[in-house]
Amino acid sequence: MTDIASRLAELGIALPEPAAPVAAYVPTVLVGNILHISGQVSFEDGQLLTGRLGEDRDLEFGQRAARACGLMLLAQMQKALGSLDRVERIVKLGAFVNSAGSFTDQPKVVNGASELMQDVFGDAGRHARSAVGVPVLPLGAAVEIDAIVQIKTG
Amino acid sequence: MTDIASRLAELGIALPEPAAPVAAYVPTVLVGNILHISGQVSFEDGQLLTGRLGEDRDLEFGQRAARACGLMLLAQMQKALGSLDRVERIVKLGAFVNSAGSFTDQPKVVNGASELMQDVFGDAGRHARSAVGVPVLPLGAAVEIDAIVQIKTG
Amino acid sequence: MTDIASRLAELGIALPEPAAPVAAYVPTVLVGNILHISGQVSFEDGQLLTGRLGEDRDLEFGQRAARACGLMLLAQMQKALGSLDRVERIVKLGAFVNSAGSFTDQPKVVNGASELMQDVFGDAGRHARSAVGVPVLPLGAAVEIDAIVQIKTG
Repeated sequence: MTDIASRLAELGIALPEPAAPVAAYVPTVLVGNILHISGQVSFEDGQLLTGRLGEDRDLEFGQRAARACGLMLLAQMQKALGSLDRVERIVKLGAFVNSAGSFTDQPKVVNGASELMQDVFGDAGRHARSAVGVPVLPLGAAVEIDAIVQIKTG
Repeated sequence: MTDIASRLAELGIALPEPAAPVAAYVPTVLVGNILHISGQVSFEDGQLLTGRLGEDRDLEFGQRAARACGLMLLAQMQKALGSLDRVERIVKLGAFVNSAGSFTDQPKVVNGASELMQDVFGDAGRHARSAVGVPVLPLGAAVEIDAIVQIKTG
Repeated sequence: MTDIASRLAELGIALPEPAAPVAAYVPTVLVGNILHISGQVSFEDGQLLTGRLGEDRDLEFGQRAARACGLMLLAQMQKALGSLDRVERIVKLGAFVNSAGSFTDQPKVVNGASELMQDVFGDAGRHARSAVGVPVLPLGAAVEIDAIVQIKTG
């Protein structure tokens, strides 16, 4: 087993099937050594985790939804690259949290994805990030996250 | 005529005048072979397409507004590059849809821009994408889309 | 004094302490000659500028909050690079304004950060930008802005 595959096994993580885009775009584009990954919504076991933080969903649910987005980002990386060992660095996560106007814990929600990246990749998983509230997401998803990833060269 | 200019003619597309920024920034910045394009709002024939999806605007209007953003992105590319033939790949679209909290068809709306890119550039127009709902956009625009584009080298 | 340090002094600008991330991520990631900076919220003198434009905050407050985000972006650049003289170009600002549904002056708000970049860096501060409304931001912040910056090589 490769290093990251071993690490996933250690963590008890089985990656989901990478979701097909719900519209006219592609999941990933590689430019030079930079992989751009489309916004992934919070699918878990093939079911979309829907709802709005601060309204019908609590922090714990939000973190689970963010982690589901993170797992889908990993699945897209693996599909695009063949192996997660080709990841040099998680560069940036752009996170959107379906939020009531009174809910201000977006950073804690998105930690569900950020901590996953650090668990899986160690220092290479430490990324820049933006996290904002939005009033609604595609299909009613609770969280959507896109990513920029640096790939090993040579 | 160049290839993409012919293709635009075939599609019956006349590009709009590239809009001047509505504030203290520039429409495009080229770094190496990557062109970053500022968020373009939904202008059509010099009029801003305003309104909120799921409230006073329907899906069809939203798609037209997203296509208008896409046309403006093309106009900015052409102005920055001299010719659309210099486009190697549309890398990423970042799309924001003015949405009521109950409207969850952002992906279908943004297809108005995504399908345009594929119509114009073929495989080179297949891009990564994020699409989210927002409660309001500059000047009341219905859609805003920014872009990352890879340019041919040599 | 270096050139940009002199310019900051001329403008009477003292940079804030760069804020520590409020969660499991890092403020900056450098990939090749591109620095990605995490979304910075509107801290001023160690206090978060909170509130919603078009509801309990006016345009002037919003511009001050956007400028505070800009100052924090500068502080993060300086910490990551050692000196602001290593900045080649401000490439892109991604701006999110905490907005009531009726508030459509996001561009004017975000000018608080955009004009700062041009004041400090001159032509090198002229950037691409997106600016959108959001219903809520982390900790109730009024504005959040992330950035992509090109660094001098050699």
